[in-house]
Amino acid sequence: CASGALQLRNPPAVPASVVSRPRGVRPRGRRALHAASCSLQEVMLTSERYRVQRLPFSHLSDGDVAFFEGVMPGRVITNPEELKPFNVDWLKSVRGCSKLMLKPQTTAEVSQVLRYCHERNLAVNPQGGNTGLVGGSVPVFDEIILSTALMNRIISFDKVSGILVCQAGCILEKLNEYLEEQGFIMPLDLGAKGSCHIGGNVATNAGGLRLLRYGSLRGTVLGLEVVLADGSALDCLASLRKDNTGYDLKQLFIGSEGTLGVITAVSILCPQKPKAVNLAFLGCQSFTKVLEAFTTCRAMLGEILSAFEFMDEKCMELVEKHLKLSSPVAGSPFYVLIETSGSSSTHDEEKLNNFLEQAMTSGLVTDGTVATDDKKIKASHRFLFLRERITEALTHDGYVYKYDISLPVGKLYDLVTDTRARLGQSAKNVVGYGHLGDGNLHLNITADSYSHSLLDAIEPFVYEWTARYNGSISAEHGLGFKKKQFIQYSKPSEAVFLMQRFKAMLDPKGILNPYKMLPSGS
Amino acid sequence: CASGALQLRNPPAVPASVVSRPRGVRPRGRRALHAASCSLQEVMLTSERYRVQRLPFSHLSDGDVAFFEGVMPGRVITNPEELKPFNVDWLKSVRGCSKLMLKPQTTAEVSQVLRYCHERNLAVNPQGGNTGLVGGSVPVFDEIILSTALMNRIISFDKVSGILVCQAGCILEKLNEYLEEQGFIMPLDLGAKGSCHIGGNVATNAGGLRLLRYGSLRGTVLGLEVVLADGSALDCLASLRKDNTGYDLKQLFIGSEGTLGVITAVSILCPQKPKAVNLAFLGCQSFTKVLEAFTTCRAMLGEILSAFEFMDEKCMELVEKHLKLSSPVAGSPFYVLIETSGSSSTHDEEKLNNFLEQAMTSGLVTDGTVATDDKKIKASHRFLFLRERITEALTHDGYVYKYDISLPVGKLYDLVTDTRARLGQSAKNVVGYGHLGDGNLHLNITADSYSHSLLDAIEPFVYEWTARYNGSISAEHGLGFKKKQFIQYSKPSEAVFLMQRFKAMLDPKGILNPYKMLPSGS
Repeated sequence: CASGALQLRNPPAVPASVVSRPRGVRPRGRRALHAASCSLQEVMLTSERYRVQRLPFSHLSDGDVAFFEGVMPGRVITNPEELKPFNVDWLKSVRGCSKLMLKPQTTAEVSQVLRYCHERNLAVNPQGGNTGLVGGSVPVFDEIILSTALMNRIISFDKVSGILVCQAGCILEKLNEYLEEQGFIMPLDLGAKGSCHIGGNVATNAGGLRLLRYGSLRGTVLGLEVVLADGSALDCLASLRKDNTGYDLKQLFIGSEGTLGVITAVSILCPQKPKAVNLAFLGCQSFTKVLEAFTTCRAMLGEILSAFEFMDEKCMELVEKHLKLSSPVAGSPFYVLIETSGSSSTHDEEKLNNFLEQAMTSGLVTDGTVATDDKKIKASHRFLFLRERITEALTHDGYVYKYDISLPVGKLYDLVTDTRARLGQSAKNVVGYGHLGDGNLHLNITADSYSHSLLDAIEPFVYEWTARYNGSISAEHGLGFKKKQFIQYSKPSEAVFLMQRFKAMLDPKGILNPYKMLPSGS
Repeated sequence: CASGALQLRNPPAVPASVVSRPRGVRPRGRRALHAASCSLQEVMLTSERYRVQRLPFSHLSDGDVAFFEGVMPGRVITNPEELKPFNVDWLKSVRGCSKLMLKPQTTAEVSQVLRYCHERNLAVNPQGGNTGLVGGSVPVFDEIILSTALMNRIISFDKVSGILVCQAGCILEKLNEYLEEQGFIMPLDLGAKGSCHIGGNVATNAGGLRLLRYGSLRGTVLGLEVVLADGSALDCLASLRKDNTGYDLKQLFIGSEGTLGVITAVSILCPQKPKAVNLAFLGCQSFTKVLEAFTTCRAMLGEILSAFEFMDEKCMELVEKHLKLSSPVAGSPFYVLIETSGSSSTHDEEKLNNFLEQAMTSGLVTDGTVATDDKKIKASHRFLFLRERITEALTHDGYVYKYDISLPVGKLYDLVTDTRARLGQSAKNVVGYGHLGDGNLHLNITADSYSHSLLDAIEPFVYEWTARYNGSISAEHGLGFKKKQFIQYSKPSEAVFLMQRFKAMLDPKGILNPYKMLPSGS
């Protein structure tokens, strides 16, 4: 492999740790991984770390708790120990101090809760799988946590149209398993699939690995049911591919991070399960080669290309170091993961092999391994598994400063190089990986612990750099609590002002997920 | 062909009329076709036919005209003869009496116009190619026509990402030609492409033939520049595949039919031009067979299926009768047009042939002709040409009552059968065709002339039938003037109320495309 020539080989023997589960840990289930790691009390309270002021919402009274107990007996959580994991985000970067979590099962219950909270001026933090990365999914102060965990019913699935209708609390991976049995898949896939809820996915307009192929949720979500801040339910749960009757209201709730309404049910168009899936894990000698490989790949694989992910060698080092997972190829400064999904294994293999031959001949790729055989599919998923666990490996490296940036693809890695040069020894590691096909870079900086001075060195540098190239400071993670003050780097003030007017119209008291998404002072 | 066995043959010799242009008529250019046909004065004034009341907007004064002449000298049209074609829709079903058309070239000019109209309380009718089918694109009374015709500049195109940025008045077909030279195509295609403007396409969320493959404009439009009712410009012209920084404001303007703002520029993601395009035109003995053929086709063609259109034999009869175009296959009650678009002609032909063999063996298809050879591609486009010209053939059959319905695919043709039975001899023809792959039926009823009693027999029958199966009363055409009173058949009252609140917030004086989209009384 070190010779620089491409060797197409079977996936290597994978160490036991890849396939065996760490004790008590569900694979790819962020919640489970989280609960298994270090003490939650160590996380500094958000209000202390960020010095924010509580807004003048009402304080929870015994009467309030009694009311909720009447609405959903036995599904009202007030035990501080039980509440802990729902007050802290998965990254352990923010911590609220909510004293109450509600677990409704029906839309009617959500309506009752919000109508009451609206009247009483009680703030509410809607929460799905709590896998968000920008502090949007946990309370900042004492907001009532409104969990969708028990709203996990599949309402209908139509095999002719591929349209799934389900409650908001269904776990993404479970939905995918259900669909696979019927020859379909979910149009999105992401590392947190074992824990994240479809309602949360829609509320944050989640991207993930399949966006390149199946497009964004703005195209695949066909309908939503939403409860507004005053408790009124809005039924836009259409199950039609095309419907031009009036403004597309559901779009306002997709990606609104729980600030405009609580999504209670989703109608989504699901693609057929591809008959053939192939994966290739390749090494490239420079980022320029990665870009050229992408252009060639897109032209040669065309409609079967379903993912084009890249990662730098630092990512792979950290995955190996902290998770004991070995990379199937080594010794390159950049790695590329290509996935194809199609309806003919013969055709797809031929296309992939033609591309690999071309990429090798022209020196775009210098090392690699592919899995094109049905029997190797299970093994090949380990490539994806490696890619998915980079986020987790980073959390083991120390405190992580996370940036999720959209840029013109040509500029994508320059931001990593420039950040690395700027921070020098003050950072432990500066790594870059992401969805190259979508122009989406995940820039991550690790340090032994959180420090104001390191943060000051990173921000607003990263945002200014991104704005210079008309990028987005949040490609897919959203703004949540941690990025909301930086919205102006990607949106003009007129747009922010209009957003604030929508918020004021739909949630005049501001009780829904306060302190999130829109800059304070709104 | 009558034997019932599938015969795969070359496209038949096509009569000269298919390829030669009717005198003075641009192919597929609705505006040109329109201007060439009968007198516009014959069309009854909308206000008389529909007995609507003018809202209390200001009346145009000489001072107003002088102001506009100052803003855009030489691009202010007041000549009644010149204004005529812009006061009447393509179907010649509605006619306004505007006395002024403005042709801005820049966003700044649009801003100046709207700021002035907002202050003066003058109503405005934004107009693109005027190819709409629901009376949304022409004035109802004397609204000022704000045409995007001169806003036809391509701003940028990036070959790496496939992102096109252009002004709103660019004609769809011109954009596609421009892109094809660079190896890309527009993600939408429709019969009116020779005249329609991309801004109008976005404002009406146009569907068309490629939606099955490339998804809706809600996924492919990446950014918009919009001028609001008060003249303020909103720059959401991002050119990024992924951007989760705040509410996705542009979505509100997509499909808002000019009632919330005037779209002045569009950023859109364009797919690569497929290397291989194949077409098959097939005959089926029943609608059940059409449905089975679709399911089989989707499974076997998978990612290369780019269109699955169906039409009944009446459609083909009318195309033959009025346009002298002969169908490549005959003698079947239903016809299906299948298009594949892919990156390998060998692979795609093999997939298509496998499907055809299977469809023939199992009796799903009883007759057909395909074009898979590069040399035949030009000829094969005639299949598409036939499909595209059904709308035109219908206008030659008399007055057309048009319905554009979304339904669960299994129910799609029942509406045609039931309508035909209900109307009996009172209608001349009742035909059905459409985008089966999207569950979208175009139901058309012709009569020698418009009659209230026939309309009463059709409406609300068609809408009630559609609502019974949770369909949409407008899949892709929008509501415009003619369908706005029927929105409640597809949207609950809470949703309509919320739309009215958005309208009131963004256009408090209601000057933008009044009398359209939302039910009156709003």
